[in-house]
Amino acid sequence: MSRLESFIRRLEAQRVCLDHAVELIRELPGPALELGLGNGRTYDHLRERLPEREIYVCERQVAAHPDCIPPARFLILGDLRETLPTARARIGTAVALIHADLGSGDVEASHRQAAELTPLIAGLPRPGGIVVSDQALETARLRPLELPTGVKPGRYFLYRAEG
Amino acid sequence: MSRLESFIRRLEAQRVCLDHAVELIRELPGPALELGLGNGRTYDHLRERLPEREIYVCERQVAAHPDCIPPARFLILGDLRETLPTARARIGTAVALIHADLGSGDVEASHRQAAELTPLIAGLPRPGGIVVSDQALETARLRPLELPTGVKPGRYFLYRAEG
Repeated sequence: MSRLESFIRRLEAQRVCLDHAVELIRELPGPALELGLGNGRTYDHLRERLPEREIYVCERQVAAHPDCIPPARFLILGDLRETLPTARARIGTAVALIHADLGSGDVEASHRQAAELTPLIAGLPRPGGIVVSDQALETARLRPLELPTGVKPGRYFLYRAEG
Repeated sequence: MSRLESFIRRLEAQRVCLDHAVELIRELPGPALELGLGNGRTYDHLRERLPEREIYVCERQVAAHPDCIPPARFLILGDLRETLPTARARIGTAVALIHADLGSGDVEASHRQAAELTPLIAGLPRPGGIVVSDQALETARLRPLELPTGVKPGRYFLYRAEG
């Protein structure tokens, strides 16, 4: 499979998992939280799918398309290791949905970063809340969910927060 | 449509058009030419689909994934306005296939650049050669072809070089 095909499948998995997560939290109140704004494409997708929810975004440094930058009051700027420990207080409540797009081209560094951030992420969703992630997040509180049809295991990850 | 969905459709159109072009040049000898290496994803795709062909790449400055950088003798470095006029001499023959991925986020600048480069691109393919492009290339020598099924008009462009 070429890198072009592999990239298309990754984006398609991301889209399908986000749409599935949006269905899963339909009855669950609370804001959404995007970890990593990047170019703003998935933020734009969540904003379109969840027009009635507040969507907070943690990002080190904004470099997104100008149309995809969240209002300042929803933007939590800084290194995730520093912003996640106080994110719940900043948001004011536990969240219904987290999307964590943490990986970079460096596979080893991405794994290390995910392992370091997992305990910080795990405390943020409310019971029953959903975490969608491009990295495996191994922790007792996050129970892996079956992936939507067509998404190859390991391409994206889906979790539900225990009570 | 969210930016995520729009991006997926653009990449899918790119993939489908490249695969279609590869079929169209099956009986036509000659190398392929990639205008813009970028991250190397479409170069990798062409390399996989055309293992028996030489693939030349014009790029201002290489910033691709290390696995997707062409051998030095196939790399033509510099601004396209300077490298395209001598590309045919450098390659040594007319090409069977060109893929031009020229656009940036700035729509107006992308149109201007495409208009400027069109006459330089038009002379490179051999008669019957195929040009796949993310921008419209309006010139007498390049006859627009019907797009493959599922590709929305304007999302990608396909041309055959007249004799």
